Amino acid sequence: MNSDEFRKAGYRIIDWIADYRGGLESRPVMAQVAPGDIIAQLPASPPQQPESFDAIIADLDRIVMPGITSWQHPRFFGYFPASSSLASVLGDYVSSGLGVVGLAWQSSPALTEVEEVTTSWMRQMLGLSEAWSGVINDTASTSTLVALLCARERTSNYGLARGGLQEEERPLVVYVSSQSHSSVEKAALLAGFGKAYVRSVPLDAAYAMRADALEELVQDDILNGRRPCAVVATIGTTTTTAFDPLEAIATVAKAHGLWVHVDAAMAGSAMILPQCRWMWAGVEHADSLIVNAHKWLGAVFDCTVYFVRDPEHLVRVMSTNPSYLQSAADGRVKNYRDWGLPLGRRFRALKLWFLIREQGVEGLQARLRRDMANAKWLEAQVKAAPGWRVLAPVPLQTVCIRHEPDGMSGDALDRHTLDWAARLNQSGEAYVTPAMLDGRWMVRVSIGAELTERQHVAQLWQLCQDAVQEG
Amino acid sequence: MNSDEFRKAGYRIIDWIADYRGGLESRPVMAQVAPGDIIAQLPASPPQQPESFDAIIADLDRIVMPGITSWQHPRFFGYFPASSSLASVLGDYVSSGLGVVGLAWQSSPALTEVEEVTTSWMRQMLGLSEAWSGVINDTASTSTLVALLCARERTSNYGLARGGLQEEERPLVVYVSSQSHSSVEKAALLAGFGKAYVRSVPLDAAYAMRADALEELVQDDILNGRRPCAVVATIGTTTTTAFDPLEAIATVAKAHGLWVHVDAAMAGSAMILPQCRWMWAGVEHADSLIVNAHKWLGAVFDCTVYFVRDPEHLVRVMSTNPSYLQSAADGRVKNYRDWGLPLGRRFRALKLWFLIREQGVEGLQARLRRDMANAKWLEAQVKAAPGWRVLAPVPLQTVCIRHEPDGMSGDALDRHTLDWAARLNQSGEAYVTPAMLDGRWMVRVSIGAELTERQHVAQLWQLCQDAVQEG
Repeated sequence: MNSDEFRKAGYRIIDWIADYRGGLESRPVMAQVAPGDIIAQLPASPPQQPESFDAIIADLDRIVMPGITSWQHPRFFGYFPASSSLASVLGDYVSSGLGVVGLAWQSSPALTEVEEVTTSWMRQMLGLSEAWSGVINDTASTSTLVALLCARERTSNYGLARGGLQEEERPLVVYVSSQSHSSVEKAALLAGFGKAYVRSVPLDAAYAMRADALEELVQDDILNGRRPCAVVATIGTTTTTAFDPLEAIATVAKAHGLWVHVDAAMAGSAMILPQCRWMWAGVEHADSLIVNAHKWLGAVFDCTVYFVRDPEHLVRVMSTNPSYLQSAADGRVKNYRDWGLPLGRRFRALKLWFLIREQGVEGLQARLRRDMANAKWLEAQVKAAPGWRVLAPVPLQTVCIRHEPDGMSGDALDRHTLDWAARLNQSGEAYVTPAMLDGRWMVRVSIGAELTERQHVAQLWQLCQDAVQEG
Repeated sequence: MNSDEFRKAGYRIIDWIADYRGGLESRPVMAQVAPGDIIAQLPASPPQQPESFDAIIADLDRIVMPGITSWQHPRFFGYFPASSSLASVLGDYVSSGLGVVGLAWQSSPALTEVEEVTTSWMRQMLGLSEAWSGVINDTASTSTLVALLCARERTSNYGLARGGLQEEERPLVVYVSSQSHSSVEKAALLAGFGKAYVRSVPLDAAYAMRADALEELVQDDILNGRRPCAVVATIGTTTTTAFDPLEAIATVAKAHGLWVHVDAAMAGSAMILPQCRWMWAGVEHADSLIVNAHKWLGAVFDCTVYFVRDPEHLVRVMSTNPSYLQSAADGRVKNYRDWGLPLGRRFRALKLWFLIREQGVEGLQARLRRDMANAKWLEAQVKAAPGWRVLAPVPLQTVCIRHEPDGMSGDALDRHTLDWAARLNQSGEAYVTPAMLDGRWMVRVSIGAELTERQHVAQLWQLCQDAVQEG
């Protein structure tokens, strides 16, 4: 495809996306296909000869689109808000179209320097001090792995340069909670700590980690010859958006030399609102921090901003310096390949840069405030409705609800919950995520798609009430 | 930005990219900026109010573009070919525009199923048996880390479920070579093995790993109470595109239970040509394999295809299953979150699917054959020119050259090499990568940008000859 053909085909793709985004409200939210439906319609083998662009678009419409669950739909209340704001999409289009790869500063200086500026903008927007440096990673999962690797190397005094974890005499221990995201335990296991050395710190009634319990576990490990290494605190847990008490956790951590990693993947976006910053009071005592700009903030996935206090330590753990990547500019520039796992790097900063500029900080703040008000409104409706419960505080945009018919409990209640949530999702009218809390199923309503206005939340609430009647 | 505004701004972006791609030949290849030039022109703080799209595009032209090293330029001979073929770019545009996230099959079934089909197409194109299953990762670096983590867990019989690497009694050992990519040692260190347990296997005269030397090292480790865990073999090394002898390495590996990971990140694309498949004879004995579709093949970065023989093992090492990601379809579908490090997943398969369909296998094959012929042509020119040397065999598209004036050697020769390469790169006329071979600098000419025809290689050769005269 040459550049003229691209121009023509590109217009078509722009129209196609504009039509899709503009017509979302009349589409089902959840894909209405069964496992294998898409595969069955695609050729089992690749085409030997070129196919026309018409044929590709036709298959996109006919085969792919029925298999799309629309995260941008105004009645998408699943998982987390991942608003791929259209300005951010265009920033990403520039990135793909340029087709540059950031192996080193010299391999496209703008890629590195716009990332440096944009992550600094993010730092300022979040109210963080200048002591933080940011880098864009793909996901929170990867970033948490990086954090725990850095913690491991700090505690072991760079054991990777010797025998790695294989020669440490006293085992290193990581502290998490049962409300930590699934990626946290995964990262600890992949980093080599082993399940035997991952402690789950008990929770308080609001599903937050208890700092006193952390202190007890740490003391016990020290007494038994183990070395406390890191604690992962979550600001806005996945299930209920609970806040681990950072200030108190950091006090324990500081006393015992623990690395403090803060997972604010979802809720971090809210810190662009000064009135929310009490939620992560103490964050300046942490060593590393993640905020997913591809969640509530509205950058198109993937765009996790990973902040660290000590980039030199990060670089020492992550750096490689083969001859074919050296240049005369080294030493005067950032080489982000030494800031994370992958060597190659997309020009991801553009999608964040476009978003922030097109919306302005105030535009982003207004949208988040709208979503929080919508969550409060839903909370009030559910609390006022007989037979319905709100199961956890609603500080942000996630509302955990359950319909509890008179006399129903235990497994029967679980079945009821899963049934009505499945009916709702299968209807295509709205999408919610069932999740477990205290061992029982409930329904998470995660508000914050860019197109979601009060009317859509009201529609959802009506749909929930209808769904429990249809059982 | 609503969908109508997107349509208008989107056309502009398409025109902007089409103009950039169509006008590459008149642009400098390497960015002509100094460290900090871009940062100095960007506001230090984010805008509070929304900015116009005009302002963003104006800054893109004025500030960002001078800082772009053009990987798609027909005289880009640096690093590796990363042809972001325009059809692939459009596939990526669909992905960003849809804004779906693959957390689970249900979160967008088409995302999973098109990836399943497309990686199967890739498997067939590469001549691999049905015993392989593929998944798309971001990069080779990440994939090699996944491979070594899987190797670690196989050798330790899932030590991660117990004390991780912290309770293994006999240390695990990984075998690489000095020509392995920098990401290989990095992965071994991050996986916790420690530098003391990463062995560099000696090379033969063609820069390939010696299987007999591997056997000796393995025997020595066993005798000393250590456990050989994994060997990383490279098909097409970064510096000279050398081939480690897979068949012989696999024989040693099988005898001692080593995991065989094959890094064919760059050269793997060539395996779509049946005449190249001798290069990785024995690949069916490997456990894992990477091919970067975002390199020579032409998919826009990032698009590494990671193949494994035993996906159940991969899933056992990587899986998490929190309640909020469970669905009724589990057990009948693939959940690619359990096939790698990140939970979230872009619809990356689209960019590969668009590429393969728009080009057809034969179209892709013809382009690769063209590039190999161009490399052979350059090799012949350099060999015939007095004072010039070709330093390594040219089986694919990389030509390692050096200008060696009479009587010049040692550090003086290194200075000469780095000088003329820098002059060439700074001229903006072409871009090459200096690299070390046998302790001395030489210049890698990596041929294979989509727009690079014979005339551009001839221009490069003239530019090299001019550059050595200008010193």
